[in-house]
Amino acid sequence: MSIPTAPPSGFRDFLPQACAARSKAIETISRVYRSFGFSPISTSAVEDLAVLTGKGGGENEKLIFKILKRGDKLEAAKAAGELADLGLRFDLTLPLARFYTKHGSQLPHPFKAFQIGPVWRAERAQKGRYREFIQCDADILGSESPLCEVEVIQAILTAFEALGVTELTVHLNDRRLLYALLDKAGVPEDKRGTACLLLDKLDKADPGEIWAEMAAQLGADPAQRLKSSLSPDSAGLKEAAPDIFATLEGIRGDLSELIGTSAKVQISPSLVRGFDYYTGPVFEFRHPKLSGSLGGGGRYDRLTEKFGGQSVPACGASIGFERLMLLLEESGALAAAGPFACVTVFSEELRDHALEAAARLRAAGFDADVYPGTGKLKAQFKYADMRGAKVALVIGPDEAAAGNVKVKDLMTGQESLETLDTLVARHIER
Amino acid sequence: MSIPTAPPSGFRDFLPQACAARSKAIETISRVYRSFGFSPISTSAVEDLAVLTGKGGGENEKLIFKILKRGDKLEAAKAAGELADLGLRFDLTLPLARFYTKHGSQLPHPFKAFQIGPVWRAERAQKGRYREFIQCDADILGSESPLCEVEVIQAILTAFEALGVTELTVHLNDRRLLYALLDKAGVPEDKRGTACLLLDKLDKADPGEIWAEMAAQLGADPAQRLKSSLSPDSAGLKEAAPDIFATLEGIRGDLSELIGTSAKVQISPSLVRGFDYYTGPVFEFRHPKLSGSLGGGGRYDRLTEKFGGQSVPACGASIGFERLMLLLEESGALAAAGPFACVTVFSEELRDHALEAAARLRAAGFDADVYPGTGKLKAQFKYADMRGAKVALVIGPDEAAAGNVKVKDLMTGQESLETLDTLVARHIER
Repeated sequence: MSIPTAPPSGFRDFLPQACAARSKAIETISRVYRSFGFSPISTSAVEDLAVLTGKGGGENEKLIFKILKRGDKLEAAKAAGELADLGLRFDLTLPLARFYTKHGSQLPHPFKAFQIGPVWRAERAQKGRYREFIQCDADILGSESPLCEVEVIQAILTAFEALGVTELTVHLNDRRLLYALLDKAGVPEDKRGTACLLLDKLDKADPGEIWAEMAAQLGADPAQRLKSSLSPDSAGLKEAAPDIFATLEGIRGDLSELIGTSAKVQISPSLVRGFDYYTGPVFEFRHPKLSGSLGGGGRYDRLTEKFGGQSVPACGASIGFERLMLLLEESGALAAAGPFACVTVFSEELRDHALEAAARLRAAGFDADVYPGTGKLKAQFKYADMRGAKVALVIGPDEAAAGNVKVKDLMTGQESLETLDTLVARHIER
Repeated sequence: MSIPTAPPSGFRDFLPQACAARSKAIETISRVYRSFGFSPISTSAVEDLAVLTGKGGGENEKLIFKILKRGDKLEAAKAAGELADLGLRFDLTLPLARFYTKHGSQLPHPFKAFQIGPVWRAERAQKGRYREFIQCDADILGSESPLCEVEVIQAILTAFEALGVTELTVHLNDRRLLYALLDKAGVPEDKRGTACLLLDKLDKADPGEIWAEMAAQLGADPAQRLKSSLSPDSAGLKEAAPDIFATLEGIRGDLSELIGTSAKVQISPSLVRGFDYYTGPVFEFRHPKLSGSLGGGGRYDRLTEKFGGQSVPACGASIGFERLMLLLEESGALAAAGPFACVTVFSEELRDHALEAAARLRAAGFDADVYPGTGKLKAQFKYADMRGAKVALVIGPDEAAAGNVKVKDLMTGQESLETLDTLVARHIER
């Protein structure tokens, strides 16, 4: 039997460069979320299936990786039916609603939380779509104020900016505004779902085809009225749902003042967002270099009801981490540096000199890699090159006797003989 | 149907304080591993079952969370047999061996890797034993040198020290030394397993009972000879396997010079360590405040053979993260700080002043939380207290008109009126 050496289809290994870049991005996002007053939480990767299924998850429920029952329970299940009792979470929002229902009384009120971690979906693997991927969520629970939308969106834009991603457009809508427009256009309530599905495709497919399909499904006149009402400068937009429109305008206005020129915010009445659990404003982050979105979110005031608790007003958003990394890789923004020094090991007898030199460098704040062995110096220099080290150090018998190290600059190839103290002083100054 | 609000048995939620403490510990360990020249890698949480089963994992193989096949494959499997095709990893060593077999040609040689992430084991949940827990591994692949053992152990001791954990004892042994002692004591080869199982329990149970059981299983004389040969100052130790003993002594000597007084290293000939895949030196970290270990590791030169590759010399170790956190919680070392400021929101009309003040504080490098709403100031101050903020800011109509903020020090209760610039300058100086 041959055992695979690749991860399963749709799963990934990350080599050092990629792994370091991902960690760095996650650290930056955490730092920004924290600076906005969001507190870190984490929930288990595995949830009871009853938590993951039921209302709210929409299409994602079909994509749950289910975990087989174990031991006697499995034997009983084989005869009786349901084989699985647990599943891997497919997002971080449903676990957050469970978490808040359980622990809310111990938490500040309102509660601003952030959560960064992997989620799993049994999708058909394809380019850029993975079965295990990272989400970076920021949420505010317990407040109905549109300040929540402002803070969540601003935090995410600030995180993007800290990573060097600018030129973003925030598309802002409200499910209730959209329904009001559909009503006004004369779309019957039982066709809302169809209309929303088609609207959701507007920026992914040929708009001409979408509107032709819309006319076929809803009738030519309602489709035409809908189309003209969706223009951002349409007067009908404001009339359809004045209060909701005013709230969106308030969010847009606050954000425009706060974020300067690194992003722009616009009301996009055709924005749908997939999840069933959204109850108010929804939004999405788009970038000119990517089709689709870099993340999004919205208000979901009723998700905690699922857990038998009271309904809790809530608003949150998620960064599409994998698409963000795609953008950052292209820009080369996250290239990782190697250690400062690779200390070669001249011989078995002199290995304690190498270890001691490395220990002194580390104590001075420098990363120092000791070559783990005593092979030929040529192989050790090659290793130092591959690690991307700045310098390689050699401590042979002469250097050991004189209390020196031979320093090879791996960029220039130049060699010098000096004490470790001089080397440290020379590089700390920089 | 009632939906659970707790995570499944053996799984955990982490509230902000605990989550922040865990992140901080992970960051510290990563930083130290990196300073020793280990490169970060990550592998998928989910592996093909064929990767997880087979030789090497020992008891852990029985503890795999298996993932149900999906769609048509599941229907076929229900009739035919094997219901699962994937599983959650139960450690980070087996995935590393797979990773190295797959990607070795793109990596430096030797390869020093570290990996920090969750693993899953379907154990019976009990106090201090979880089904999802973090491991922090450091490994060196491709070198037979005992320098690997020195570096891996030193890196872990340095990480412990950076977290304030001292008083550690490193117990060092070699599976081959132990076998030589068993041979010398006259324990037949087919009783080795029994003897090792009993030795492994020596520090967890009453030694008197263990030795009585040993005599019953091996015979009185072999048991007696084994017992006396296991004393650390026994001359028989060195005679049993002189080369191996000399290597252990070399590792011990290097470490003693490098680590100073924060830990001690001793050769413990009765140390077993559970995994079947160890082939040479094994070691374990113990702390006086904990029974059992804070981590451990060893040399596993043949694990990559499982994947059809050549055998690759390898040595690695893992920090028992959950037990480490237990120790740190008791010491209170990782208490997390709240944000510098909570900015209250006086009224809907003045919310832009609050948002702007927060933005300016963040730009100056301070964490600033905006109360997400416009409730009574009393509730907002209570929120600021619960967040552990240093100061709460109020910008009412008078302050807004005069360009001031009212600053309430949440430790002393004192209030002052000043500009935001003064506040920032006053706290940056500190």
